[in-house]
Amino acid sequence: MNRPSDAAIDALMDELSRGLRADQLSRDPEKLAAYGHDESDTGDFPPQLIVFAERTEDVAFVLRTCQAHGVPVTPVGARSGKSGGSLPLYGGASLSLERMNRILSISTENLTAVCQPGVITGELMRAVEEKGLFYPPDPNSWEFCTLGGNVAENAGGPRALKYGVTRDYVIGLEWVLPSGETIRVGRQTIKGVAGYDLVGLFVGSEGTLGIATEITVQLIPLPRFVKTALLLFADVNAAAKAVTAILHSGILPRTLELLDDVSVAAVDGRGFSFPPGTGAAVLAEVDGNDEEPLFAELARLGEIATQHGATETLLAADGPQRERLWAARRSLSTSLRALKRHKISEDIAVPRARIPEVIAQLKAMGAELGLTVATYGHAGDGNLHANILYDGPHERAKVDTALERMVKLTLAAGGTITGEHGVGYAKRAFITWEQGPKVVALQQQLKALFDPKHLLNPGKIFPG
Amino acid sequence: MNRPSDAAIDALMDELSRGLRADQLSRDPEKLAAYGHDESDTGDFPPQLIVFAERTEDVAFVLRTCQAHGVPVTPVGARSGKSGGSLPLYGGASLSLERMNRILSISTENLTAVCQPGVITGELMRAVEEKGLFYPPDPNSWEFCTLGGNVAENAGGPRALKYGVTRDYVIGLEWVLPSGETIRVGRQTIKGVAGYDLVGLFVGSEGTLGIATEITVQLIPLPRFVKTALLLFADVNAAAKAVTAILHSGILPRTLELLDDVSVAAVDGRGFSFPPGTGAAVLAEVDGNDEEPLFAELARLGEIATQHGATETLLAADGPQRERLWAARRSLSTSLRALKRHKISEDIAVPRARIPEVIAQLKAMGAELGLTVATYGHAGDGNLHANILYDGPHERAKVDTALERMVKLTLAAGGTITGEHGVGYAKRAFITWEQGPKVVALQQQLKALFDPKHLLNPGKIFPG
Repeated sequence: MNRPSDAAIDALMDELSRGLRADQLSRDPEKLAAYGHDESDTGDFPPQLIVFAERTEDVAFVLRTCQAHGVPVTPVGARSGKSGGSLPLYGGASLSLERMNRILSISTENLTAVCQPGVITGELMRAVEEKGLFYPPDPNSWEFCTLGGNVAENAGGPRALKYGVTRDYVIGLEWVLPSGETIRVGRQTIKGVAGYDLVGLFVGSEGTLGIATEITVQLIPLPRFVKTALLLFADVNAAAKAVTAILHSGILPRTLELLDDVSVAAVDGRGFSFPPGTGAAVLAEVDGNDEEPLFAELARLGEIATQHGATETLLAADGPQRERLWAARRSLSTSLRALKRHKISEDIAVPRARIPEVIAQLKAMGAELGLTVATYGHAGDGNLHANILYDGPHERAKVDTALERMVKLTLAAGGTITGEHGVGYAKRAFITWEQGPKVVALQQQLKALFDPKHLLNPGKIFPG
Repeated sequence: MNRPSDAAIDALMDELSRGLRADQLSRDPEKLAAYGHDESDTGDFPPQLIVFAERTEDVAFVLRTCQAHGVPVTPVGARSGKSGGSLPLYGGASLSLERMNRILSISTENLTAVCQPGVITGELMRAVEEKGLFYPPDPNSWEFCTLGGNVAENAGGPRALKYGVTRDYVIGLEWVLPSGETIRVGRQTIKGVAGYDLVGLFVGSEGTLGIATEITVQLIPLPRFVKTALLLFADVNAAAKAVTAILHSGILPRTLELLDDVSVAAVDGRGFSFPPGTGAAVLAEVDGNDEEPLFAELARLGEIATQHGATETLLAADGPQRERLWAARRSLSTSLRALKRHKISEDIAVPRARIPEVIAQLKAMGAELGLTVATYGHAGDGNLHANILYDGPHERAKVDTALERMVKLTLAAGGTITGEHGVGYAKRAFITWEQGPKVVALQQQLKALFDPKHLLNPGKIFPG
């Protein structure tokens, strides 16, 4: 696919201007540059035009017009994605949903909320919590990412261990197809099995099958109490084994977040100081409607950790201390970036029993290649973020070798190339390694059914 | 589509005999008759041939051969479906998975199990519970239905309120496509977002997109304690309002099963006797790892129920009493059949807030048409089984009127035509009422992509 000519973009602009206000269209070079990158560190791909949709009809109009002009169009939310899903690889138009940012309704009786795609996830969380309800999916970027982006990537987060991921909460969608036709799929009820699960097909389709313009999510009652413990270990292997033992014991915490030695060092002193000799940490949380049993559960969890080599178990005494711990965890991605100029964040997931072995292999690989590998993540569900830190382009070949080896050892352990960030552009070369050519071909047929000209978010998920 | 000629079936038999043993093929008229009906009461559609698959290769061989011969093939499990999903509407072959009934592995470390499709759901439940693990989806037919059938229909059950339905537990599949090609989709990990959610597309596709020959499910730790309460009411409206109030209070029971007056009368005396004047009952269960808070939770729940008109709240004192309550609930479908010769079991779901209003409308409709309507079901998630009881064919026209009105009032309340039984043959005329022609057409295109000749389970889900 070739980048459209300037003349083609001029013609498109002309037609779009007939249905949109001037401030909904931008060709400002600075803005175009900004929309050309995200949090994936995979390069710059500026669009030739940005359109700011304000209602469903705008989205339908833009898709219809881009189809007619044969110009690629790439949906974009907060540009906080980590797999390059919102990068306009072949130019054309970026279609921003950021202005469609209203929570349309919250029903405390039905336990549902209806949102536009540009709603910031954290705003939805706060709005429902004020009403005693709970929207559990909590990507670390929740303060700035959008619900539409979460739906596109099927975002997870620490609480996925107990509560599942975005797909488990989305029950209905208004969906503009690549042709510009608008459909409503799913339901307003908690249960429902009429026809194929089109909602499930859409969630995680990374903006390749259409654009969600209205999202209905189900909510659950907000647990009254949350209790937090920090478990410290001398090394990451002990921590990983403790995680497996805790889950094996019958306790289902809401989070079990692992930090290895590099990660511990990176956040040390940023609101929380680790005792000397700490080589790994696990941030564990349990929740429920009664306070006493939660303390008992954390005590049991601490005992198991101690049996598996925990050097210390600290209970977060109050709200602010808990908030400091989580702030440190959430800032990890940024803190690691401060260590070296460049960072590639991998997002593998392996069967839980393989966590200790895979972490050991990642460390050994880093040592062998002379690269700093920081591993942290949602150890409870086997979703590890292995970060390769490096200084500049001269190390890039080594980094690419490391990435390939990481993918291979993950797949050898029965794992997946992406636990929650999506394939996007960053990992499209690897999906066939995981799924094989037949399954990839079947998905490409599905894509072609929805978007025969491949104009919506081209070049994503599948090998280019 | 026409029923294949006897000659066509002879030719198919010939070719199938080359790859299968004689005892894997049957044209015995008694068996053919038995495979011609299920629990849907929608008529008799005997196949012309039954094939008993014993391994994935058999399934692939049968599908390939049926495609080559242009003979329709309909997968079948335990024939306990309530929407006619396993009925061979146009004859041809029934492909039974009942002999593929082995649990292949249970991993207490990864919290997963791998099963063949013919595994009885109750056997899987018991096998994992022995290891301290929990497979929550619990269709009332769990003692005889199969996991493959549950996957095909995306089966729910009482515990769906807290734990979700079959789709929430299936993470990987071996899937034989209608062409006979075998693929593996999904993952062995808890999290994973590589590519489109083909597993989610398959679950609930009612045997129209292929046949699952191996199913990987995720498990959770088995809660240590379950506590049960029975809440009694003078009438169903009060009960329905209490259900809404309980959920609104922040309590998330694992079940909230509702029985109306007809249902209470039908089970009265069968292991459990209701006090005189009981016009409705709610069976509530909570579970967790600590016993004391569960009693406290049930007490809170009982208080709310009393505030909303409960005449009595009974705590199930011990295991056997609890078992009697559930046995009564599970036998409801059979007990109702004892009242009148025929029964049509509807499976609607409505937004929770609309439950009281919809139940009142159903009762009024029954009274107006002179039909007995028994409503019970999973009131906690709005999934109601409204049963029309009648004496014989002379009442059928009235019953059809009632069914249509029931669907219309459900849709008017924002509900769905099927909460957990599937569309199958029984409700294919109604799916367009719910979803509209565009969404139905899109699904038919999906079906055609997988099965261009429409030979796999033809005539299901979509209008004939």
